[in-house]
Amino acid sequence: MYFAEPVAKLIEQLSKLPGIGPKTAQKLALHLLETPEEEAEALATAILTARKNTRYCSTCFNLTDTDPCAICQNPSRNRKLLMVVEEPRDVAVIEKTGSFNGIYHVLHGALSPIKGIGPEDLKVRELLIRLSKEPVDEIILATNPTIEGEATAMYLASLLKPLNFKVTRIAHGLPVGSDIEYADELTLRKALEGRRILE
Amino acid sequence: MYFAEPVAKLIEQLSKLPGIGPKTAQKLALHLLETPEEEAEALATAILTARKNTRYCSTCFNLTDTDPCAICQNPSRNRKLLMVVEEPRDVAVIEKTGSFNGIYHVLHGALSPIKGIGPEDLKVRELLIRLSKEPVDEIILATNPTIEGEATAMYLASLLKPLNFKVTRIAHGLPVGSDIEYADELTLRKALEGRRILE
Repeated sequence: MYFAEPVAKLIEQLSKLPGIGPKTAQKLALHLLETPEEEAEALATAILTARKNTRYCSTCFNLTDTDPCAICQNPSRNRKLLMVVEEPRDVAVIEKTGSFNGIYHVLHGALSPIKGIGPEDLKVRELLIRLSKEPVDEIILATNPTIEGEATAMYLASLLKPLNFKVTRIAHGLPVGSDIEYADELTLRKALEGRRILE
Repeated sequence: MYFAEPVAKLIEQLSKLPGIGPKTAQKLALHLLETPEEEAEALATAILTARKNTRYCSTCFNLTDTDPCAICQNPSRNRKLLMVVEEPRDVAVIEKTGSFNGIYHVLHGALSPIKGIGPEDLKVRELLIRLSKEPVDEIILATNPTIEGEATAMYLASLLKPLNFKVTRIAHGLPVGSDIEYADELTLRKALEGRRILE
């Protein structure tokens, strides 16, 4: 033990955070000990308050401090357009673009046989119950363009299409500002498949 | 606001930490909300406990939960050998090597005219008072090999030498495992100046 015990304990707790190694944990711990006391307390309080005051929306399963969440409650959102995403952070990313005015459904993961994650571990049943009650026309599958995300989208499409929903998938293709030269084969193939007529 | 308010607040507090940008802060916040509640609470508690139970040792100014600190209290340490370092983390690094059995004095910074840090902002006066009372023979100046650290070492040497202490500076040279080809000029020059006879 090269640090006093409470310091060592703080370093240990910080190094449990994702992407924080022992060196960074040490730097953060010493910062928290040298910063004005209010700063350190504000962080501790923010952690406790966020844990106490946030839950998952019982409708869309996004992180929220009200139930239903602000988006589900908002009368100006288009309730006929539902976007399915993997995680709460995806909702934040889409909201930031300002280009979507529908509602969401957060699955809390993607199918992954390797990790042992099946449909029963995701909010799939909740989606089906919700769709039986709400006036949704189109379901946009916005799971990640990864193997797991694709598998999840395919699985959901196979469930939802027979129920006569319009099921769409977000486009794959070249990211804006990227270079064809450095694009991987699969992305290029998807970009070709998804080509559109210029009008 | 794309996240619920308590979540946004947590992200904001986390992004005040050094080296934590908004993306990482978001990742950490969502982790803290999805991890078991005990984990999040353990971190908050560790922050508060560390703040409450650590102070600076009134002798050496290292971070400690006892006063004097464990090193200053330890009767098996050599009290005639005192190492001056910039920060508490330097004490931890030296202790980890296990190759020093003396005592420390933590300056809490280095001289920097640009940042407006003068001797009165460091624990220099405290060092002189301490040296007037303790039976120190040799003072090892282990400030960083940076412009500020060098200036601080020079300044301390000019204060301490007239008081008839043996004042030494940690060696500069090539780091073990490095490659002469990639060494910078200044390091190489210092390595040459510091050459020793092989016996």
